[in-house]
Amino acid sequence: MVVVLAGGTGGAKLARGMLDVVGAERLCVIVNTADDIEAYGVHVSPDPDLVTYWLADLIDERGYGIRGDSFGVMEALESAGEPAWFRLGDRDLAMCLIRTERLRAGERLTSAQAAVASALGVGARVLPMSDDPVRAHVRSDGRLRPFQEFMILDGGAAPIEGVELAGIERARPSPEALAAIAAAEAIVIGPSNPIISIGPILAIPGLRAALVAARAPVVAVSPFVGGRAVKGPTDAFMAQARLPLGAEGVARAYAGVLDGLVAEEPAPGVAVLEADTLMASSQARRRVAALTLEFAASLPRA
Amino acid sequence: MVVVLAGGTGGAKLARGMLDVVGAERLCVIVNTADDIEAYGVHVSPDPDLVTYWLADLIDERGYGIRGDSFGVMEALESAGEPAWFRLGDRDLAMCLIRTERLRAGERLTSAQAAVASALGVGARVLPMSDDPVRAHVRSDGRLRPFQEFMILDGGAAPIEGVELAGIERARPSPEALAAIAAAEAIVIGPSNPIISIGPILAIPGLRAALVAARAPVVAVSPFVGGRAVKGPTDAFMAQARLPLGAEGVARAYAGVLDGLVAEEPAPGVAVLEADTLMASSQARRRVAALTLEFAASLPRA
Repeated sequence: MVVVLAGGTGGAKLARGMLDVVGAERLCVIVNTADDIEAYGVHVSPDPDLVTYWLADLIDERGYGIRGDSFGVMEALESAGEPAWFRLGDRDLAMCLIRTERLRAGERLTSAQAAVASALGVGARVLPMSDDPVRAHVRSDGRLRPFQEFMILDGGAAPIEGVELAGIERARPSPEALAAIAAAEAIVIGPSNPIISIGPILAIPGLRAALVAARAPVVAVSPFVGGRAVKGPTDAFMAQARLPLGAEGVARAYAGVLDGLVAEEPAPGVAVLEADTLMASSQARRRVAALTLEFAASLPRA
Repeated sequence: MVVVLAGGTGGAKLARGMLDVVGAERLCVIVNTADDIEAYGVHVSPDPDLVTYWLADLIDERGYGIRGDSFGVMEALESAGEPAWFRLGDRDLAMCLIRTERLRAGERLTSAQAAVASALGVGARVLPMSDDPVRAHVRSDGRLRPFQEFMILDGGAAPIEGVELAGIERARPSPEALAAIAAAEAIVIGPSNPIISIGPILAIPGLRAALVAARAPVVAVSPFVGGRAVKGPTDAFMAQARLPLGAEGVARAYAGVLDGLVAEEPAPGVAVLEADTLMASSQARRRVAALTLEFAASLPRA
């Protein structure tokens, strides 16, 4: 069993490469749900769905949503004058309805998300980090904004003054996530935003301790290439957290958890496999996944 | 102010005719919500939406839904293997999302439904009969089935042994419905199913008394033409209630409430305006609406 911790695109791409390397039966992805949002009365899970669409080879070239999707519902909302800023394709929305229907019926988020994976024929497990609601808010210009509003309405461009995780104290890791961590032979932190994507996963009470107690080595893949994040607002979040952009910043973000790091340059205090972590093709995704696993297997575990 | 009590198609057609006769400012339709259903995690209100689509001149030729709608979401649910028996077009679903989002935010059904009317530019008021949940169940073959399942999954064809209205004891008429009834100059019970569509409206504790106390005459339009209901399973529901098909059955179904009845034949114990009530064209809908109003104005009121 290989466990990948993932947020959005970076972690999802690594998970897709890992699927080729270890197969669906042996892959379990634990995904950030602090970006979840209620939109139009339905429960949207952007990161778990992104991972699922990547694993199903359905990801759209926009970087999110389903390839070739139609937008009948969004167009109807827009012509009705509704604030349709969170655009969901029809097929994407259908996945949200599958999840929402089950949540309203009292199912846990883990099982509701499993129904989405099943709907798209994804055999690997995509586990929400928690069944409890955690919501990331970004403090910016003195205001506290839900993450998706900050990213989409504000363009992710406003100065970041801090991050708050509403609900984090009461959240617990799902039993499935804890079981996967305990059973894993390798645990890989994907190249997602260490602060806003991986940060919430590690902040769930009990989850960090489970990683430390796991028999498997914990290896991170750096999201930085050429001293910058490949995608998204990672640089600004790292800067606000006073962490350098690059291997050292990643190592410090995950201090106390990491056994190794795959990055393009060395970092003090951690075993680093120096490698090109760009995953622009399926070959590259497979290569990064394979070398990360080999590196993990080579590490001594305290 | 003219108040129309409506269920599905018959009441909606009369309301559309009434819109031509009295204008949006003076029209208020109180609609059955006992057919409401949670489908795919969203709140669907079949009768209020049917009335709204008729008033917006958007009704599809299927007899429900929005003309020219696409089915992207339903197709996605079907190809995901979901039980998509309750088919909603994308634009139809968008209206359900508008309603559901407001309900989740704590708004009353009345205000959520008003948002749907507003989204489609409908100026007349479409009022749910109650903000409280009432759900019609049909007893058939010893089983109790929600009305939509009975109609769609069972084809409305199984023998009807009874009707139960879950939640009816705790339901109250909305303040808006009570105010409209009190302020009305005419109250018209549309040609909808007396048992399963109008029955729940009259069964809400306090609503029948409000009709009796209203200063306006209460006039019903018979749903029977040529001794049969124009549409739907009305005949079977009337038979189960041991009511004859025609004016007499309608008069008995609404006994104690009616001041007059528009029907194709006379009935004992009530003033009847004999008229053709078929509303197959916009001219016919206008004509039936106009003659019903004239008839109501001619009636003495105790």
